[in-house]
Amino acid sequence: MVIRYPNGKFYTPEKNNLKKKQNKDYSYSNRGKTLEDEINETNEYYLQRGTAVIHKKPVPIQVVKVEYPSRSAAVIKEAYYRTASTTDFNGVWQGLHIDFEAKETQNKTSFPLKNIHAHQIDHMMMVHKQKGITFLLVRFSTINRYFLLPYGPLKNAWDTMCQGGRKSIPLEEFETHAFEIAPGAFPSIDYLKAVTKMLAATTA
Amino acid sequence: MVIRYPNGKFYTPEKNNLKKKQNKDYSYSNRGKTLEDEINETNEYYLQRGTAVIHKKPVPIQVVKVEYPSRSAAVIKEAYYRTASTTDFNGVWQGLHIDFEAKETQNKTSFPLKNIHAHQIDHMMMVHKQKGITFLLVRFSTINRYFLLPYGPLKNAWDTMCQGGRKSIPLEEFETHAFEIAPGAFPSIDYLKAVTKMLAATTA
Repeated sequence: MVIRYPNGKFYTPEKNNLKKKQNKDYSYSNRGKTLEDEINETNEYYLQRGTAVIHKKPVPIQVVKVEYPSRSAAVIKEAYYRTASTTDFNGVWQGLHIDFEAKETQNKTSFPLKNIHAHQIDHMMMVHKQKGITFLLVRFSTINRYFLLPYGPLKNAWDTMCQGGRKSIPLEEFETHAFEIAPGAFPSIDYLKAVTKMLAATTA
Repeated sequence: MVIRYPNGKFYTPEKNNLKKKQNKDYSYSNRGKTLEDEINETNEYYLQRGTAVIHKKPVPIQVVKVEYPSRSAAVIKEAYYRTASTTDFNGVWQGLHIDFEAKETQNKTSFPLKNIHAHQIDHMMMVHKQKGITFLLVRFSTINRYFLLPYGPLKNAWDTMCQGGRKSIPLEEFETHAFEIAPGAFPSIDYLKAVTKMLAATTA
């Protein structure tokens, strides 16, 4: 369809398209929301209903200089982002410790492992040893599919890479070893449903 | 004892005393460390030995302005401290979700409840409902005593205050309902030992 402005000129959409591309994920269903936004909304939904208490951890920031203007709040004037030593989300659900990392990729056929840091895998390994429930939540943004990949297959793929093998996890691997999450409205990403499936599969 | 310097003049300790006072906790055993330092050290000890995976959550900061000098890290030029909506420490230990707040007081006979925020009690209530292990760790810095106060007696004291009652928890209450932690060297505050006692008392 050709859109004409009242002045009769053709509408040139280039500029607008550029903006959309910068927005990264502008498919119909997630409407420009980041995966983090979607998980935060889901966690808020869980919290309000008394389902679970899971929060995103604040980003660690090294504060260098703080000013205290009279009668107002302290203002941080110099600070730097630090690398997180753990995963992004954790909390408790029905007596279970939940601990996970969330990542999105534009890639349609595989998840590049460069998105994960070694210290995050180390952290997940330690949580797993302590009998915490730990996993990776991945959004393939372009094809709008969400997966909960358990620690086991993630660790296998990581070890393979470290031994000089494949640097990404193919989509088929997710279809086989991960638990797919159908995006919804309330909550947007009902990942605890996938955790339930994962636990059932582990104990079966 | 009067201390004389080689020049024969009397030693005037005022200036030095002032510095010690600013340091707040300069008793022999904790040597100016904050309770947070001691817990971080203990958590590091637990982590290194594979005992538990418990971390302090980063302080939430609202970033307003960031600059990106070429060839160097992003510099935060304007930011503000936000109020945390949860407790300070959480993690996993032998399948149990651990979640607690740590506070120190200079008071010798009671712990003032103004040190705790309503939203922290709310958070602890939700964690407790989800079968997480939640408690308050208190250091009476002046008398150098440490207590793990379980959620139950803490909530009772809080509710009493909200109904117009006492605004602090007396030391005797800690001696009766809390679990004392003897400060040591490695780890400095072995609070998981007190958690073990608390769990044994609950299931007994």
